[in-house]
Amino acid sequence: MPVLQPIVNIAELLYQKGITDVVVSPGSRSAPLTLAVARHPHLRVRVMADERSACFVALGMAQQSRRPVAVICTSGSAVYNLAPAVVEAFFGQTPLLLLTADRPHEWLHQQDGQTINQVGLFGAHVKRSYDLPPDYSHPDARWFIERSLNEAITLSQLYPAGPVHINVPLREPFYPTADESFSYGPVRVIDVCTAQPTLAPDTWHGLLRQWEQSDRIIIAVGQLPRDPALLAILRKLSDEIGVPVVGEIVGNISRNDVFITRTDTFLAGIDEQTAQSLQPDLLLTIGNSFLTRNLKTFLRQYPARRHWHIQPSIDRINDSFQSLTTLIPAEPLAFLEKLFADLDYQRFLQGDDDDDSDSHAFLNRWQTLDRQATRLIEKTLMPSAEQTNQLTDWSAVQLIMEQLPEKSVLHLANSMPVRYANLCGVSERQQISVSANRGVSGIDGCLSTALGAALMTDQLVTLLIGDVAFFYDRNALWSAPVPPNLRIILLNNDSGHIFRIIDGPSRQPELETYFETPHGYTARNTAEDAKLLYTVCDSLDTLGSLLPDFFQPGNTARLLELTTDKQANQEQFLAYKAHIRAFYDNKI
Amino acid sequence: MPVLQPIVNIAELLYQKGITDVVVSPGSRSAPLTLAVARHPHLRVRVMADERSACFVALGMAQQSRRPVAVICTSGSAVYNLAPAVVEAFFGQTPLLLLTADRPHEWLHQQDGQTINQVGLFGAHVKRSYDLPPDYSHPDARWFIERSLNEAITLSQLYPAGPVHINVPLREPFYPTADESFSYGPVRVIDVCTAQPTLAPDTWHGLLRQWEQSDRIIIAVGQLPRDPALLAILRKLSDEIGVPVVGEIVGNISRNDVFITRTDTFLAGIDEQTAQSLQPDLLLTIGNSFLTRNLKTFLRQYPARRHWHIQPSIDRINDSFQSLTTLIPAEPLAFLEKLFADLDYQRFLQGDDDDDSDSHAFLNRWQTLDRQATRLIEKTLMPSAEQTNQLTDWSAVQLIMEQLPEKSVLHLANSMPVRYANLCGVSERQQISVSANRGVSGIDGCLSTALGAALMTDQLVTLLIGDVAFFYDRNALWSAPVPPNLRIILLNNDSGHIFRIIDGPSRQPELETYFETPHGYTARNTAEDAKLLYTVCDSLDTLGSLLPDFFQPGNTARLLELTTDKQANQEQFLAYKAHIRAFYDNKI
Repeated sequence: MPVLQPIVNIAELLYQKGITDVVVSPGSRSAPLTLAVARHPHLRVRVMADERSACFVALGMAQQSRRPVAVICTSGSAVYNLAPAVVEAFFGQTPLLLLTADRPHEWLHQQDGQTINQVGLFGAHVKRSYDLPPDYSHPDARWFIERSLNEAITLSQLYPAGPVHINVPLREPFYPTADESFSYGPVRVIDVCTAQPTLAPDTWHGLLRQWEQSDRIIIAVGQLPRDPALLAILRKLSDEIGVPVVGEIVGNISRNDVFITRTDTFLAGIDEQTAQSLQPDLLLTIGNSFLTRNLKTFLRQYPARRHWHIQPSIDRINDSFQSLTTLIPAEPLAFLEKLFADLDYQRFLQGDDDDDSDSHAFLNRWQTLDRQATRLIEKTLMPSAEQTNQLTDWSAVQLIMEQLPEKSVLHLANSMPVRYANLCGVSERQQISVSANRGVSGIDGCLSTALGAALMTDQLVTLLIGDVAFFYDRNALWSAPVPPNLRIILLNNDSGHIFRIIDGPSRQPELETYFETPHGYTARNTAEDAKLLYTVCDSLDTLGSLLPDFFQPGNTARLLELTTDKQANQEQFLAYKAHIRAFYDNKI
Repeated sequence: MPVLQPIVNIAELLYQKGITDVVVSPGSRSAPLTLAVARHPHLRVRVMADERSACFVALGMAQQSRRPVAVICTSGSAVYNLAPAVVEAFFGQTPLLLLTADRPHEWLHQQDGQTINQVGLFGAHVKRSYDLPPDYSHPDARWFIERSLNEAITLSQLYPAGPVHINVPLREPFYPTADESFSYGPVRVIDVCTAQPTLAPDTWHGLLRQWEQSDRIIIAVGQLPRDPALLAILRKLSDEIGVPVVGEIVGNISRNDVFITRTDTFLAGIDEQTAQSLQPDLLLTIGNSFLTRNLKTFLRQYPARRHWHIQPSIDRINDSFQSLTTLIPAEPLAFLEKLFADLDYQRFLQGDDDDDSDSHAFLNRWQTLDRQATRLIEKTLMPSAEQTNQLTDWSAVQLIMEQLPEKSVLHLANSMPVRYANLCGVSERQQISVSANRGVSGIDGCLSTALGAALMTDQLVTLLIGDVAFFYDRNALWSAPVPPNLRIILLNNDSGHIFRIIDGPSRQPELETYFETPHGYTARNTAEDAKLLYTVCDSLDTLGSLLPDFFQPGNTARLLELTTDKQANQEQFLAYKAHIRAFYDNKI
């Protein structure tokens, strides 16, 4: 058996445990891992030089496919370059398998190159960390490697999914001789059965009693991938039971006549009386983090008497609104379907569909405000006569959201794009799947993540991104070929524009120099280097005429750079805030 | 007192403890720290969006100034983006003060944005990690902050210098009101006296006895900043005591008629008889890591009976050559000066200058091989008739090294440039200061590091860098203005060329796809975006005529892109290896 056979077998284990894709950054210490996956007949391998980008690409691939993706890098600072994506994967619950080559530990602190403390390097930001042995002669060592790989791949997918680190110390020689051919396996795959959490009947009936004792119930949906079955049951709960369903774009709660998606607008500057009229008795939440501060602040300042949070299993008490009373281990979809069935059956037994009138009145209050918020936004986006054609970030995003191809994928970069997109929303008929790195909400890997997603779907993947996030992560594009179904829309206002929009920094004399940091870059050269089809646009009319072609499928990825003016963006946002203030002033 | 006064005072503490420079990446959570340093009358602040680059720039500034530089970033994945530079600073012994803004810890795992486990984030790769309190009302909290800053700044500079992490949880509001002006201090500065390690007379005499018992003594110098006094005493020890002084370009051991700088050449493929004739009885080492594998392998395979390592204080046993016998806490310069004085006095007492003949014979063997290696390299670089004008990486580096302006600074990027530069060497008369990130030898921040160095000196800073390292780190340039004294020389062979040069990967069918990863990029667009003066060159003659102007001072940073062919580079390297083989074959 070749010395490195246990390392070669890792590729086969990945494959047999369901991993199909690997992202590799070149290195010599990692060569045995690289060769093992490169020569494997069924693994798809993508190579990227910048480990930071590489790991965000893997993150995007895993988000899109909902399967773990393996990442291979060499020893030393290379490993730390994975960390920004690892921490996003950890808090964003995305499965990744990190295979980091290492020098054998006895070389640490011996002034040898590329040798750092890699064991447990990611600290609390991986689900578990393994350190493989550097020598394989004892059968227990081979048993340990095989068992660890089995466990790690399974663990990465168990709720909450996340990154798992396998550190792989490797001794020389790393390279097979010319006449040495690889053979894989046999490997031992350990199947892990899955089970659904099931509440005891007493627990369930206790919850039902709490529900019945509550007059004003809200379901709020945090970040979740798009799930038509979930959307269907949420609609029923709202339509038939009269529960307001509150959600955001990152939760894939799209705009329709039922869901409440404008909270960021109508909860801003809300007066106390209106707020009290919206305060729930029972708040039921599913999903991960919420995007908008206004919703979070409202639910903290006007807390529900009871707050249930439903998630597939319990590992931590997540008390986002500082009022959690009950943590329910359940699959949200299964829980809501059973809840609706039981409530519906009770309504049938009681023979009345009308006793929910008070509840429907509560729903109506939320829905009315949601419609009024829509008109406020329309008013904000309605240009004055002389500005008909002015392109602002927000007006651009509105137009883009309306024209997104049906059933396509939308990636929203952090900072302003995800906020503008949430203010605009996508309509239900478009059936758009929305993704964003909201685990830790960094701007550092948004372009790489979207590129990774595009590698795993035939649908068009559109990324809305600001200039700081774009240039920060442009190494994503330094790896041919860029998938042809990627559409990048760059909102270039030549600054970290969010600092002008939010309250605090916009008042400081240091705004421009220390926060916005204008750079004067356009993306033309970056697009040329990366061989993207590039278009630049600075008017709303032109944008409208460009988009249909931009969204056509084709053989080349495209980049559309929108040049906007930060003053105009700021004025529009200030006008929006004034409209909201006027709305509540007139109301009182 | 404003609530955030203890945070404002941090800026004053930095200044009073001798820190003059801060690198800031924009963020909102970090705004109180940013404003504190931005408004301070004496701190120089540079702003860079990409935290990875920002921290490498700070590293370069600290390397150049030999003083700690402070780094400020916001919470979340931003902090992890510092890590590649932090680990280089740790193993490269460069002082950095990392001020990372954080959310108060109670918000961890509460689905709040940009909230990760920042306490102790850098693990074993900082000298110490502090976590400041989020509330300052109790006087002990303010005492803790002031005392911690004092300790941290001192600690970063104590041998071995390195990064220190101060995590700063901050509550809202972050921003002063419009009418609020900052006032700094008074702050309490705690002076820390310094002391030199002094060996007891018995210890010293014991060492002298060991020296006298040794016939064949070598002094080998690992990475060190340039120090004329050290070079002078090393020359005396070689000239007058007859000790071979072996060094590399990263140790700032320049070429002259005395020092042994060609070990990478003449120790490659050395026969056993010659190797034994070079084997020392006593090896004395100073400095950090050694660059070349051939030297390290030789000293491991032909170990000295005694190996002394001299460093200012002892924290770990660094046994690079697996033969360490004595670890000596001393300043290398002071130790060597005292050693020479004592040896010289003994020679005077004994009245003979000739009893070192055997020792001089040993020196002669090393120096003869060094001269023979020089001829081997000259032969390699001597072009055949049809290749007179062919530009290869190596021939380019040779020409550049010869023409470097006197007393300028040379930065060597990792992978091939530092190796080629070491093969060529710099001559003593040039008085070049050489730097390279050899703490962990990553390619990830070489451009940023050189840019940071250029910010801290009026001398010209020339960076030799390959294409993968250059594009990897091009965000260094996304921050105007690029200092005008920076000269970037890019060896663009369109690949991770080292994989073709080293033995293992060059034999694999996967070489190009999985290791070299050709990208087709030139730097023209990157240079245009960054407003650098750009020149491209693909012949040796042209390079020779360009360099005098390129090295002229001016108002704009310059980038010279050298287009070389990876096959030609490989052929030249293979020819070099053949010359070495022929040399030892003929010798036997």
